Amino acid sequence: MSEPKKVLVLGAGYGGLMTAKGLAKQLSSSEAEVTLVNQNSYHYFTTELHKPAAGTSHHDHTRVEIASLLPRSVKFVQDRVKAIKLEEKKVELEGSNEELSYDYLVVGLGSAPETFGIKGLLENAYFIRNIDSVRRIREHMEYMFSRYADEKKDELITIVVGGAGFTGIEYVGELVDRIPELCRYYDIPEGKVRIVNVEAAPTVLPGFDEALVKYAVDYLSSKGVEFKISTPIEECTEEGVILKGGEEIKSATVVWTGGVRGNKVVEDSGIDTMRGRVKVDELLRAPGHENVFIVGDCSLMINKENDRPYPPTAQMATQQGQQLAKNLASFIRGGEMKPFVYEPKGTVASLGKRVAIGVVGSKKLTGGLAAFMKKVIDLRWLYLLGGIGLVLRKGKL
Amino acid sequence: MSEPKKVLVLGAGYGGLMTAKGLAKQLSSSEAEVTLVNQNSYHYFTTELHKPAAGTSHHDHTRVEIASLLPRSVKFVQDRVKAIKLEEKKVELEGSNEELSYDYLVVGLGSAPETFGIKGLLENAYFIRNIDSVRRIREHMEYMFSRYADEKKDELITIVVGGAGFTGIEYVGELVDRIPELCRYYDIPEGKVRIVNVEAAPTVLPGFDEALVKYAVDYLSSKGVEFKISTPIEECTEEGVILKGGEEIKSATVVWTGGVRGNKVVEDSGIDTMRGRVKVDELLRAPGHENVFIVGDCSLMINKENDRPYPPTAQMATQQGQQLAKNLASFIRGGEMKPFVYEPKGTVASLGKRVAIGVVGSKKLTGGLAAFMKKVIDLRWLYLLGGIGLVLRKGKL
Repeated sequence: MSEPKKVLVLGAGYGGLMTAKGLAKQLSSSEAEVTLVNQNSYHYFTTELHKPAAGTSHHDHTRVEIASLLPRSVKFVQDRVKAIKLEEKKVELEGSNEELSYDYLVVGLGSAPETFGIKGLLENAYFIRNIDSVRRIREHMEYMFSRYADEKKDELITIVVGGAGFTGIEYVGELVDRIPELCRYYDIPEGKVRIVNVEAAPTVLPGFDEALVKYAVDYLSSKGVEFKISTPIEECTEEGVILKGGEEIKSATVVWTGGVRGNKVVEDSGIDTMRGRVKVDELLRAPGHENVFIVGDCSLMINKENDRPYPPTAQMATQQGQQLAKNLASFIRGGEMKPFVYEPKGTVASLGKRVAIGVVGSKKLTGGLAAFMKKVIDLRWLYLLGGIGLVLRKGKL
Repeated sequence: MSEPKKVLVLGAGYGGLMTAKGLAKQLSSSEAEVTLVNQNSYHYFTTELHKPAAGTSHHDHTRVEIASLLPRSVKFVQDRVKAIKLEEKKVELEGSNEELSYDYLVVGLGSAPETFGIKGLLENAYFIRNIDSVRRIREHMEYMFSRYADEKKDELITIVVGGAGFTGIEYVGELVDRIPELCRYYDIPEGKVRIVNVEAAPTVLPGFDEALVKYAVDYLSSKGVEFKISTPIEECTEEGVILKGGEEIKSATVVWTGGVRGNKVVEDSGIDTMRGRVKVDELLRAPGHENVFIVGDCSLMINKENDRPYPPTAQMATQQGQQLAKNLASFIRGGEMKPFVYEPKGTVASLGKRVAIGVVGSKKLTGGLAAFMKKVIDLRWLYLLGGIGLVLRKGKL
């Protein structure tokens, strides 16, 4: 009998976790040795980060220990990936001198903020990116609110959200829920707080159904959110943002949600990338590298219906991971791989705790019903990840 | 029948509140018109501020709305005192053009931090002073801890407490309770956090019983607190503190508890002051002003036993207010005033939630029993302030 194949999975996001779990389920340890590398001991729910960022939920509700999710047959290494050495079939880690070798590599290293070259953004804005970054946004915002009592400067309680895509709108929705509580806590009159959502595109939630977009904008506006559409940010400074045309909004808290790009480690590996993302083939392989698979935000797939890239979503990453695990298991046993076809199940954007908008199947949903569907979707991920036990531990309806 | 006498009480701290409440209880509205001026709508418990400063209790547990404490016969004005015009018998307010006139003035405007001329302290340190300032300390500290995850700089999780008097030691005690919780929340190993208590005097808690001081230092040291005694702070910078001798401690959070001085408004009024405090006579009158009474931290009384000033405490202010109310009521009715004699009931310093040290009567207490007595003392103030109703609402054993 031959040696077990070495499968190395980089990143425990939606794509990486689904791949590692699926492989462990389908292959025995004599067929494959599966190793998962992740910089944190935990997986976090990227789609939920807007809540701890606003302070409407504890960040611990947004993460789960990886060790509790994996079967013992998967080896877990907590470390950061430093470099991928394609020719040597090895991966270099930051914390260890030993390199990890592989027969098959699965790259699911996620994304980094895309700043589109906006001056000062990386230095002065906050990003909804991971547990550390959203915990920091929350603490920063609360600290600014606490200073208002003494200093009475309006910029301390002015929040600028850059980007009105999915994350931006969901974050604004959470803020709308949180501000009244913050105002009570810090003795600030509610009318003093400003939430300004700035978007360069001509609409909020580009690509989303128009009636649903109107519902979202009407709802959030009724709660006091100011929208500045078709308005690119020219510069982010220590004092706030300067918009195209010259208007300055003074703000101590600028949160950028305007887009993501792929991972720098992938760019540096020598694989062809576009904004750090790899245009994969239908088997999710990197071009020219038959043993390297890319899942999640690092991968780029074209939607043939409109000839544009699919947006990077948890749903996409999850389906990719599930399919890749099946394909790799089959291939290692000498079988065939099947082309990956994305099957969109629908999309729901929450606007705080009680309201949402969405499309599920062919149905448009708004309000409380949509908010309920959002919960169902969240619970489904918990179920895929850790079965009914995790749903009971982490799920909140 | 003559006009009612106008009694104007400035400040709703322990002294001012007790005076206003006592007067309203003892005199009818045809005898006196009592007005209480305070910058906030609430009274706060100065002796409890170390808890919200550390984050071990919500700041709302440390304050109570003044309107809920006063009988209707007392007129409450929420404003800041701008100036006391002794010759005109008037008080100028910041928010109103109308001046308040008085026949009798009671000044209980509290204290301000005393920095002893230490360079950079006012600009760079935090002060345990009022609700706004402690809420800010808490938020600042938490924000620094949240940044540690990204930046890994030790100064972010190094807290320097200047002064090892009552407030300093009680604050350090609360921090010792809080740090493990913060470390869990921010994913920081507990051993990384430093609490350094710096004191210029040759002992912690100067004036306190030696055996009790040893108990406190041993307990807090066992929890990891570093004490630097006989060590004046030379300078406080944006980076931390520089100690006498040149040692620098890098710290993002320097909290100064080293002492208080009287109120600037009192200094500016023309009354003789020493560090902003007025050396009152035995009827609590300002020297040379028979109708002006000073209570609480603005007053200075000499302890004849050791010929040194009594430290400004809530206990002192409360007793002064109670006695002054009786004296003024009697005087307005044409009776006598009795000399004020301070009767120390004892002192308990908490070291977190479960441990304390103290002297009550002639008994030395340590540990849990002392902690219990501290609670009793806190509840007694609630009882004096608002009766059993307030004890039930705000008291927590």
